[in-house]
Amino acid sequence: MGFIPIVIVYMWSGLSLEAKQKIVDGITKVFEDLRIPKEAVEIVIIETPKENWGVGGELASVKFKQIKPP
Amino acid sequence: MGFIPIVIVYMWSGLSLEAKQKIVDGITKVFEDLRIPKEAVEIVIIETPKENWGVGGELASVKFKQIKPP
Amino acid sequence: MGFIPIVIVYMWSGLSLEAKQKIVDGITKVFEDLRIPKEAVEIVIIETPKENWGVGGELASVKFKQIKPP
Amino acid sequence: MGFIPIVIVYMWSGLSLEAKQKIVDGITKVFEDLRIPKEAVEIVIIETPKENWGVGGELASVKFKQIKPP
Amino acid sequence: MGFIPIVIVYMWSGLSLEAKQKIVDGITKVFEDLRIPKEAVEIVIIETPKENWGVGGELASVKFKQIKPP
Amino acid sequence: MGFIPIVIVYMWSGLSLEAKQKIVDGITKVFEDLRIPKEAVEIVIIETPKENWGVGGELASVKFKQIKPP
Repeated sequence: MGFIPIVIVYMWSGLSLEAKQKIVDGITKVFEDLRIPKEAVEIVIIETPKENWGVGGELASVKFKQIKPP
Repeated sequence: MGFIPIVIVYMWSGLSLEAKQKIVDGITKVFEDLRIPKEAVEIVIIETPKENWGVGGELASVKFKQIKPP
Repeated sequence: MGFIPIVIVYMWSGLSLEAKQKIVDGITKVFEDLRIPKEAVEIVIIETPKENWGVGGELASVKFKQIKPP
Repeated sequence: MGFIPIVIVYMWSGLSLEAKQKIVDGITKVFEDLRIPKEAVEIVIIETPKENWGVGGELASVKFKQIKPP
Repeated sequence: MGFIPIVIVYMWSGLSLEAKQKIVDGITKVFEDLRIPKEAVEIVIIETPKENWGVGGELASVKFKQIKPP
Repeated sequence: MGFIPIVIVYMWSGLSLEAKQKIVDGITKVFEDLRIPKEAVEIVIIETPKENWGVGGELASVKFKQIKPP
């Protein structure tokens, strides 16, 4: 082993299990392509409610009212 | 656009929506004052329970039992 | 005071209060042993569900189905 | 004291000392406006080179070649 | 736009520009595959020296002396 | 293995190698005492210059001019 990337992903709450699996899958492969063994890759997804996000000075719960997480 | 600050704010759980709005508002303005366009500023508020905070070796849930978030 | 370490601990959800106390206690002492006053040490424990962790390309909720947090 | 926000700010490398002071100043005031004593506010600015940022799939060092930090 | 993942990647210092580009590229695509527009994806790579990593109680600079970043 | 804590430690720049070793050593033991195998514990120390820290609205480089890291 050796090289050990840690990846913290911040997203809105409400991800489906399938989306989480795809994120973990996909990001792990990015590092495998760099010849880092997949056992070495750790990923943590931090979900926080939309109203805890600010973009352009607005809460995401207001600005992106209609949009749902994948 | 271009310069893109990311701001992660860790606080105790229980913030009011108004407090969140003020945090997002205020922090965004700090960067606007530095001539960074507000669209470029992203803020995430991570709320964790008081008992997940340690200050001076004590859990905040014990040390600051009486204190409530804004 | 002066030197102020901030420690963010990412773990699976479900820690007992006792485990949290031990983590805060123990980590604070590590810095006291470096002559940093304990008042200066801040620790935040971020708990996220097992299914938000990826290790070796698998969700921890699948890979470590049997394992429970302390 | 009691309520202790921790704020991590990620920005490009190359901030002037004046900009850092303004960021610390401004963000601290945001929390003072929420009646959190300023002693309780801790801010860390993490500067990373432009080429360590990806926006829209491009490195910021390419996408925003002309833009300088404040 | 709307859904805005922030991804913080912690790695050892010494990544080549090519590796950084591949990381940004690859991770952005993971989210595009979830129908998140690529403009919405922000990635920051935090490089820290090997001697700032601890794995299994050992500094990575000792444990993985021979291993180089991609 | 299974339970995998990730610990991010933010400190001022200038830690001695000995201090880093003690931090890694000590924090790893905290989790071993919770029966988490030490191989599972990952620690990253992020050092940033004193002038990138704000405490009580002041830069640490001003407020704690005399103080040196361990």
